[in-house]
Amino acid sequence: MKPRNQLHEVSRTLAQVALGQAFADVVVRGGKLVNVFSGEILDNIDVAIAAGRVAYVGNAARAIGPETKVVDAQGRYIAPGLLDGHMHVESTMLSVTEFARAALAKGTTGIFMDPHEIANVFGSEGVRLMHEEGQRLPLKVFTTFPSCVPATNDLEDAGARLEVADIEEGLKWNNVVGLGEVMNFPGVVYGDPKMLGEIEATMRSGGTVTGHFPSDDDPMLQAYIASGVTSDHETITREQGLHKVRMGMHLMIREGSAWHDVKEVIKIVTEDKVNTDNISLVTDDVMPQTLVEKGHINHVVRRAIEEGVDPVTAIRMATINVARYFKLDQDLGGIAPGKCADILLIDDLRDMTPSTVLADGQVVYDNGAYAAEFPNFVYPEHIRNSMNVKRALTPDDFKLASRRPGQDHTRVNVIGAIENSARTEKRTATLRVENGIVLPDPEQDVIRLACIERHRGTGEISLAFAQGFRLKSGAVASTVAHDSHNLLVMGTNEADMAFAANELVRIGGGMIVVEDGRVLAEVPMAIAGLMSEKSLDEVVVEVARMEDAWKRIGCPLNAPFMTFSLIALPVIPEIRITNRGLADVTRFKLIDVEILE
Amino acid sequence: MKPRNQLHEVSRTLAQVALGQAFADVVVRGGKLVNVFSGEILDNIDVAIAAGRVAYVGNAARAIGPETKVVDAQGRYIAPGLLDGHMHVESTMLSVTEFARAALAKGTTGIFMDPHEIANVFGSEGVRLMHEEGQRLPLKVFTTFPSCVPATNDLEDAGARLEVADIEEGLKWNNVVGLGEVMNFPGVVYGDPKMLGEIEATMRSGGTVTGHFPSDDDPMLQAYIASGVTSDHETITREQGLHKVRMGMHLMIREGSAWHDVKEVIKIVTEDKVNTDNISLVTDDVMPQTLVEKGHINHVVRRAIEEGVDPVTAIRMATINVARYFKLDQDLGGIAPGKCADILLIDDLRDMTPSTVLADGQVVYDNGAYAAEFPNFVYPEHIRNSMNVKRALTPDDFKLASRRPGQDHTRVNVIGAIENSARTEKRTATLRVENGIVLPDPEQDVIRLACIERHRGTGEISLAFAQGFRLKSGAVASTVAHDSHNLLVMGTNEADMAFAANELVRIGGGMIVVEDGRVLAEVPMAIAGLMSEKSLDEVVVEVARMEDAWKRIGCPLNAPFMTFSLIALPVIPEIRITNRGLADVTRFKLIDVEILE
Repeated sequence: MKPRNQLHEVSRTLAQVALGQAFADVVVRGGKLVNVFSGEILDNIDVAIAAGRVAYVGNAARAIGPETKVVDAQGRYIAPGLLDGHMHVESTMLSVTEFARAALAKGTTGIFMDPHEIANVFGSEGVRLMHEEGQRLPLKVFTTFPSCVPATNDLEDAGARLEVADIEEGLKWNNVVGLGEVMNFPGVVYGDPKMLGEIEATMRSGGTVTGHFPSDDDPMLQAYIASGVTSDHETITREQGLHKVRMGMHLMIREGSAWHDVKEVIKIVTEDKVNTDNISLVTDDVMPQTLVEKGHINHVVRRAIEEGVDPVTAIRMATINVARYFKLDQDLGGIAPGKCADILLIDDLRDMTPSTVLADGQVVYDNGAYAAEFPNFVYPEHIRNSMNVKRALTPDDFKLASRRPGQDHTRVNVIGAIENSARTEKRTATLRVENGIVLPDPEQDVIRLACIERHRGTGEISLAFAQGFRLKSGAVASTVAHDSHNLLVMGTNEADMAFAANELVRIGGGMIVVEDGRVLAEVPMAIAGLMSEKSLDEVVVEVARMEDAWKRIGCPLNAPFMTFSLIALPVIPEIRITNRGLADVTRFKLIDVEILE
Repeated sequence: MKPRNQLHEVSRTLAQVALGQAFADVVVRGGKLVNVFSGEILDNIDVAIAAGRVAYVGNAARAIGPETKVVDAQGRYIAPGLLDGHMHVESTMLSVTEFARAALAKGTTGIFMDPHEIANVFGSEGVRLMHEEGQRLPLKVFTTFPSCVPATNDLEDAGARLEVADIEEGLKWNNVVGLGEVMNFPGVVYGDPKMLGEIEATMRSGGTVTGHFPSDDDPMLQAYIASGVTSDHETITREQGLHKVRMGMHLMIREGSAWHDVKEVIKIVTEDKVNTDNISLVTDDVMPQTLVEKGHINHVVRRAIEEGVDPVTAIRMATINVARYFKLDQDLGGIAPGKCADILLIDDLRDMTPSTVLADGQVVYDNGAYAAEFPNFVYPEHIRNSMNVKRALTPDDFKLASRRPGQDHTRVNVIGAIENSARTEKRTATLRVENGIVLPDPEQDVIRLACIERHRGTGEISLAFAQGFRLKSGAVASTVAHDSHNLLVMGTNEADMAFAANELVRIGGGMIVVEDGRVLAEVPMAIAGLMSEKSLDEVVVEVARMEDAWKRIGCPLNAPFMTFSLIALPVIPEIRITNRGLADVTRFKLIDVEILE
């Protein structure tokens, strides 16, 4: 349960400390307070803490008793712990516990996670497990319940479906604070009953309906807002951002590993000078490398400051604004009496790297060392054995039979990958047909691609062709395959494809690169085939090796495994592969690989 | 029920209008939009309205169908309806219905009322009736449930008590949004179980705990905040205001009939430049004259602008900031898709007088004429017959017998009234004793004062002496006698005192001025002895006559009936009369009128 205690349970203790009738547990002494309420920096401030919450702010000398721990903040800023208002922990490839370790050291003391990926594999149970894992940590983990599982109804099969009743149930869990990004915005706007039912259930529960609106269509946007969705984090232009703020949306400006929206969208603050109280900063998706190299939400704050935002305003956008949006500002988001003592000591606001982090009044991180417990959370066996593929794959499984007998060439649809983009291009190619099998063509960079159903052991395999990865040898496979997370395989030859698939099944999912029957690199992800059980440092090394292996087999792209993991996502144009086949996302229908007419 | 509908019930209609699939009910065309979200004024904006809510903002030409009502806003500002975050309707002396008529014409579309006065007379039932009356009106009436009834436990007897269970029950009523100003701040800070129980119940219900902290004591303030109280409207200095904002409080800056706090406190905005997103403007108490002459919350906005606040910021402080504080910003506080269409058309933002007012998408007021229904609400008979005095009063009832037999002089404590102040001074005087009766002394301006229990017919009468009103003849009486609202009588002679009291009982309560056995003026207040059943205009005339009558019998004070009505309020220093006797409010105990030792 987070906050660790409810305010009324400890308010007597706080009042006594404030009145000078009792000593504090901890006093942070003599720092420069980042006051997110008034928008000022106040010099030489003490913060007295008791029962995990702030009891007094000012000169707290008299709150220091013989047992009081004094944390010297001289020369440092005292800032509220940072909140990430929208993120998917699964993207870090880490367990919630391991992510929490990493994030706390960067100054994140609370997150609002949307466990959308595990929901596609294990439904409500997966959401509940990640949520429960989060409740045992010094990091405050709030959950917005995934809203769009599966992402589409007719194009793919995920491991689970979430219905309105599941959302209603989940909203009753402590610290589930709303509905996760409602990606199916056409469904909302045009009145899909499931979408409307989820929104209504969330509003009735008093929760927050978070959004996802990656479009310039103004009437649709306004219809979306009028349907009850109150935020968006898919804004990539200044114009979109300005319009969404004007329309009353809570605008979440995103800076993740693959998304770099701050530079452009923050202009609404630095140039258009809009009110910032309904704007926050979020990460959405961060990879392990980014966590290590740049940080977490503190990096987004840093980026906003680099773009010219006043540091106090930037910090407000990752603290009080987030707390207020989720109606948690009585507990979180600032340093004032009664609030959870989630506090950062920072040497340089422009750098935004905390040297000391307190969560619920406990020093959890100090000068590179952890002082907190991160209890081990073990997922149930079936979650750690999520690969349910009917049988071992053989090279023949990856051979696409032509539906045009007697022809020695055929024209096919090809999925064109684009570096650093979630979009794909619908392309075509003419391929040779030999013995009734459509052959890939290395000359045209057209290679084989397969999607294997892995949740229910149906044995379903769909085949297609991809272009743009420029593999010269070997094969790759991944169970991180948004959003249904089936088993995705791509390669230059069928033998390596079968080997990669079988090997990934054997290790329980994750990502793998193979060449000539040998594993070049793998990132095992035992938790639902989505998250590693290893430490951040180990995962970073594994991912770096995997990136090298992609290069070694010919792929020159930046973070190609990211691009690859999105190749099965049938909600972003233009063309995708799912377990059911090739999906034309501009028309939302399955199409043939071969162009038959 | 307000909002008239819940968003999810009408979101389909709104979406269709936004998408251009349906026509709007109303389109407000071509005005200058006061965008409280971005903090801008946007030119040439239309607002399309359907089902009482905003469907589309921008160019809404295509939403205009054959049945669409078009409201021309050319040359006018389109601003969200104003919200008063803290007020007592009883102070207007009007029924909620009649107040709503007056307030809507001034641009108030929502109030957060604390029906504290009727609660002291009729407890939960009184609160419920005023709340229910409010639910039938075009004005949105939200209630914060009175927290401190009676105001004190040991000094007086009100007509009712509210316990924690009453608050818990009230918080379940639709549109009861929190706990009314928690005036007993010492009780909160020092752990009074009833106060803590009420706060806990409110926090559990998701409601807002509103405060009242008229003190400079910083440790007490922080203990108060740490106890869960999140706002204050008793701030009178810039320093107090700045400190409260820094401590995370929602600061309500007040400009009522008797309170003029804007001039000083707004300096935290104009000079200290603090963030304004947690600051709002409120009236607290307005008299009928003020409503007519200056307006309602629009006057407070005007005052803020006069003091140098940018008009959009000033409007934000009476719209979105209020809505957000009460967690109602998805429905109220701005003009954006999905929000209730509570909209003002204003010619001049500095004047802040709306020429057209829409509530829930209906034009309710236009160029001096009402276009809305204000259904007649009749209170039950026992509420309209609230005078329960044991028997007719006689002149002898007002004679204070000396407890010092045989002396011809005695020294007494005197309540010293101060013009334009809620405070009183504890003074003393030496008075003559004749036939065992302590006599008043016109030379010293010491006159008789009595407080008669009027709720349960106990026959209890307490007697004392007052100074400062300078009456030369006649007597006055009032059943508006904060907070217990017993029957307060003051006069230069016992006969007129008895006459005033009996006459006020006869007309069912209110205020009266008599002289030589004749009624000079009266303001009948049939509803609980607190509110008139007449129209604003009639009440204004009655109150003006009453003020004249006070002058005629010698009183030169400004609004003496206000000062008089506070003379029984035993929570403000220094000395008061209650039905139980003379209360020393510096020591919180009853004392003798005569100084016996």
